[in-house]
This record gives sequence, structure tokens and C-alpha cells, in this order.
Amino acid sequence: MAAPDDDDGGALRWRVLARTQVHDYRIFRSMAVRAAHPQTGAERDFTVLDTPDWVNVIALTPADEVVLIRQYRHGADRVHVEIPGGMVDPGEDHGAAARRELAEETGYTAAEWRHVGTVEPNPAIHGNRLFTWLALDARPTTATELDAGEVISTFTVPLAEATAMLRDGRIDHALVVTAFAHLALATSALRRP
Amino acid sequence: MAAPDDDDGGALRWRVLARTQVHDYRIFRSMAVRAAHPQTGAERDFTVLDTPDWVNVIALTPADEVVLIRQYRHGADRVHVEIPGGMVDPGEDHGAAARRELAEETGYTAAEWRHVGTVEPNPAIHGNRLFTWLALDARPTTATELDAGEVISTFTVPLAEATAMLRDGRIDHALVVTAFAHLALATSALRRP
Repeated sequence: MAAPDDDDGGALRWRVLARTQVHDYRIFRSMAVRAAHPQTGAERDFTVLDTPDWVNVIALTPADEVVLIRQYRHGADRVHVEIPGGMVDPGEDHGAAARRELAEETGYTAAEWRHVGTVEPNPAIHGNRLFTWLALDARPTTATELDAGEVISTFTVPLAEATAMLRDGRIDHALVVTAFAHLALATSALRRP
Repeated sequence: MAAPDDDDGGALRWRVLARTQVHDYRIFRSMAVRAAHPQTGAERDFTVLDTPDWVNVIALTPADEVVLIRQYRHGADRVHVEIPGGMVDPGEDHGAAARRELAEETGYTAAEWRHVGTVEPNPAIHGNRLFTWLALDARPTTATELDAGEVISTFTVPLAEATAMLRDGRIDHALVVTAFAHLALATSALRRP
């Protein structure tokens, strides 16, 4: 079997001909991309969004409770249950961003940190990456520092309750679910249900 | 403990004052939202993207191999390993969309279908949902019907190999990882690693 991220000998990869900015929305910039079909050479236009890298954190307390937050999200126009996270600042290490976001959003800090997974949030439209960190023995030690416009409520639940919340959809933010996927797959293999 | 999707008595939810279209990109429309802070009433502007609902499919063959595809993604400008999926058409049932996308992209059909999870792909900027379906005893029975511009290569791997690909990042499309999270959590609970 060919390596599964192979390009089938160039049969799949489009050739980018031009890339121009359409609009700057601050949280991302929309770009118009002109590209040539890998097999026919036919040209088409696509929209992509230039977006900074993101980070999120599964923080476990000494009692193995997960630190969760409630936060209003403007795209969905409702409050979601999430894990702490945010944008990686320009030039910032993603591990440093994880520590910073956990402390700023929840006031928790942790002694032990492990990078447990990296995903591309939505490669059809974004080129950025999301780095997930696991923070062990996390404790509330510091004051929160919220950005203007951030309104966040912090709470903790046992891992069994977090499992139930993922199963029944109370946790349904895809980028939070991906973080827990890496935690689940660290100790379990996929099986036919 | 309050229900974790509560709004803390209205302390978290912004009040939307106006919502106007900025640009129509075909795959989504950018909208400018003016909203008032839940506690201070201060007004701010936000960008959100109106996007159709999406669907994806974990299809298992009679030998419990997973049907995967390789597809170039314009946002990331590289080929990704994914599961079949796409947009739910206007008025279409998401279960019908799952069956349609599996057949169109891979030529596989299946007798047994289960809806295994629903997520919001990124509620910070999108308001749409992604429905994940499990297809059991999937077999290649029909011709693929690719959209103009879709170039897809199909292959299968055992569930143990899919587990390894998720762990080592060969599968790193977040919306594919969320689908496998629901499969993993159907048979396993989260544990401290």
C-alpha cells in the first residue's frame, strides 16, 4: 500500500497559480486562489481563509476532573461547553500559548504538560493548525486575564462525566471533541461498536 | 451543579443587534454581526460565516476495514486522508446526504446506517452542524459521481491501522478526527493516560 498521505503520483494535488487577498476580517483574511486541476489543467477559483494557529488544553486536576469552560460563540449564537484555548500569538511557541491560555481563561496552572495531538481545523478552507496539550495536576493558582469581549465561566467535571457529555452531545464543539479524541485514543483502540 | 450548557443566568450570552452580509463566497457568506456584551451592554462587531450543514461517514467493510479517501484541500494546499463527506443539500435529510456522499465519492453502499454524533464544526465563526454516520457492511457496488473539481482516491485500512493513523497524525483533519472520537467513545471511556 502506498503511504496514505501520498499524492497518487501527483494525480490529486492542484497547482496554485495565484493567491490574492479579498478581505481582512482581523480573525482571518479571505483569499482568492486560482488553481489548475491536477489531471486536466482546467483552472478554477477557490476561497480560503488565512488564519493563525490555535491551541487548546485538556487540564486534569489532581482528582482527575477536567477543567471546562462555558463561552458564548458568535457563529452559533449560543453558549458552548469547551476546554480552554485560543490563538497562538505571532512568534509564540504553541506550548507557551497553551500555558498562557489555560491561565488567562481559567486561572489554572499545571506542573506537567504533554503535547497530545495536532490537527488541521478545516483544511478545505483554513491552512492553520490546532495543537492540543494535556496539563496534569492542574490547580487554580492565579487570577484570570480575559480579553476584551471574553466572558467565560469555569467548572470541573470527572472524566466519566466528560465522557457522558461527549456521548450525548452536551460537548459538541468539533475542535474540543478532537482534543478528547486524542485522549481517548491514547488508552483505547477503535473497535466496531 | 448547573446544567453545563446553561447560560449562567444570562451572564454569558451576547445580544445580537444587527446581522448584515459582507460577501458571498458560494461555499459560505461572511456576515458582520453587531452585538451587545451580556454584562456591560458595550457593543462590538464580529465576523461570522453562514455555511450549509455538513455530513461525514465512517464506513466499515464486512472485514471491519474503514473506507478512507485521499483528497487535496485548498486551504491547507496539500492532500489529506479523510472519510467521505460533504454538504447537505437544501431540504435534504442528513442521513440521505450521508448515503449520497458515500456512494458519489467512493462507490460504496451499505445496508446498516447509524447516526453516531453531531458537532458544530467551529461555532466561533460558523453556525452550521456536522452529522456523522456509521455505515456497516459497506461494499463497492456502484460507480462514483464526482463533482467538477473533486479528485478523490479511495482505499481501505483495518480499524487498528486507522487507530495508528489517528495517533501519529496521518489522519489530522479535525472534522474526521471528531467522527472517530464518537466511534472511540461508543466503546471506551476517557481515562487519564
